Amino acid sequence: MNELDLVERIRRKAEPGARRRMLLGIGDDCAIYRPAAGEDLVFTTDFLIEDVHFRQRTHSAADAGHKALARGLSDIAAMGATPRFCLVSLAVDTDAADQWVDMFYDGLLALAAQHKTALAGGDLARSPGPITCDIVVCGSVPQGEALRRDGARAGDQIHVSGALGGSALGLEKPKGEAWKRHLRPEPRVKLGQALRGKATSCMDLSDGLSLDLHRLCAASNVSAELDGDLPVFQGASIPQALHGGEDYELLFTAPAAVKIPKIMAGVPITRIGVIRRGNPGRIKLDDFELLPLGYDHFSPSQKP
Amino acid sequence: MNELDLVERIRRKAEPGARRRMLLGIGDDCAIYRPAAGEDLVFTTDFLIEDVHFRQRTHSAADAGHKALARGLSDIAAMGATPRFCLVSLAVDTDAADQWVDMFYDGLLALAAQHKTALAGGDLARSPGPITCDIVVCGSVPQGEALRRDGARAGDQIHVSGALGGSALGLEKPKGEAWKRHLRPEPRVKLGQALRGKATSCMDLSDGLSLDLHRLCAASNVSAELDGDLPVFQGASIPQALHGGEDYELLFTAPAAVKIPKIMAGVPITRIGVIRRGNPGRIKLDDFELLPLGYDHFSPSQKP
Repeated sequence: MNELDLVERIRRKAEPGARRRMLLGIGDDCAIYRPAAGEDLVFTTDFLIEDVHFRQRTHSAADAGHKALARGLSDIAAMGATPRFCLVSLAVDTDAADQWVDMFYDGLLALAAQHKTALAGGDLARSPGPITCDIVVCGSVPQGEALRRDGARAGDQIHVSGALGGSALGLEKPKGEAWKRHLRPEPRVKLGQALRGKATSCMDLSDGLSLDLHRLCAASNVSAELDGDLPVFQGASIPQALHGGEDYELLFTAPAAVKIPKIMAGVPITRIGVIRRGNPGRIKLDDFELLPLGYDHFSPSQKP
Repeated sequence: MNELDLVERIRRKAEPGARRRMLLGIGDDCAIYRPAAGEDLVFTTDFLIEDVHFRQRTHSAADAGHKALARGLSDIAAMGATPRFCLVSLAVDTDAADQWVDMFYDGLLALAAQHKTALAGGDLARSPGPITCDIVVCGSVPQGEALRRDGARAGDQIHVSGALGGSALGLEKPKGEAWKRHLRPEPRVKLGQALRGKATSCMDLSDGLSLDLHRLCAASNVSAELDGDLPVFQGASIPQALHGGEDYELLFTAPAAVKIPKIMAGVPITRIGVIRRGNPGRIKLDDFELLPLGYDHFSPSQKP
């Protein structure tokens, strides 16, 4: 199959998801989006690489497609934004079956439909290395209302959604709910939107609580004190909950005076600590310092 | 060097290029862009893959960085848009020197500065395969004025900018002006903007005139008749001018009544033929049919 045929097939699949403000989608040099008055646009880009973020042995093509978009949608959720469209670049080996590519887009488009996200364009290439997908998701948010990670202030309460460590547990023992959590993460898009006007800072937990909270504190120039009351995923260990990546829950802070319900947008919320002045980036857990041991793609000691 | 350090270094490099409407750049879950009233946004995404689009033996890291962005800017030019920002995802092997990554961004940012394009974000990953970059460029254009490839009408004159086949010649004989053309393509951004309100359709020549004109005609539901008066790059062959990719010149159509100067935005313009009714996608050259033999990344017979 040549590129034109393949692009045409993807275009036909993508069409039902086309949205009103998407003036032009797949097939030209660029896609065209017409912004609404009073909206800010947010953009995220994430790789999904074979044997780094998924394995053909354990992940179907549809799982890979789902995960590629879920990672991007989770970043959109972290900004409190509404997803609008995505661009998907996919490099596959010459011997990859067209069927794999087809199923990849099916998995991706099923999740896109759920979140009303148009597939607006992308690139296709043959490449010898591992299957490599790069996805960009664009979301929109009312002007000035995006949630950032640099807004945490001393005295703010620290909260997380859902339970932590499930994805790490699933990776260790690929079965049951934990494996499902690893295989098909659910981006907390509705929750992110519900946090606008409440949270002072927010980010998604993609690399593990210890590393991600460290980043949030460093960006906000504050430190954190955890009180040990973590929502641990059933069966997961404390280290998995503290350092395990890919939970795609939301980590956020809110002033003590702001009431945060125990359940928001259908997801349980747990208060896990408080923001303190000084020592930017440091995290205290009981009387110990919690080191940022989460997953760092560029740390040489942590080859996947 | 870990990801945080590397991202911090890239962020510092990128800062001088930050633009007014870029509310938030590298370092959060998403970048934030505030659209101006009355603008449409255009988006393109392009891979740059080692041994497909560049070789370490012949391309410095800075050359690769330049080319990654040039390919995206060329798509922005083809829409008649003004580039605003880019997102750059880069996957490199664990043994790639940090210096390579540094120089890649230097080459990319030098071109970005020339075109006032902010580096707003991206992703970094370690991956075994070839060095793989995926770039997204966003441009803006007054509402409804984007140039598309589906607007060519019977009777429109067909024009190209610059000279064709230089990049293919340079690839064959890596020296002189032709090699420079291959190594450091110049996206026709100013020309694209000058064509707004004049051209009925436009695209950039990335895969060769024969294939790209075929695509333009197919999108517009018309055919083309070339009169053989091609602007051939000095020293290049006719097949190189007809089918050689990566010239990154603009191919456009305009009604016969619209005066197209011989030089626009400093670039020579040549009329090469006329658009005809019917036979969508077909191209006549003298009395022969010109087959679309340009570069197709997904055609199995054309492994790079």
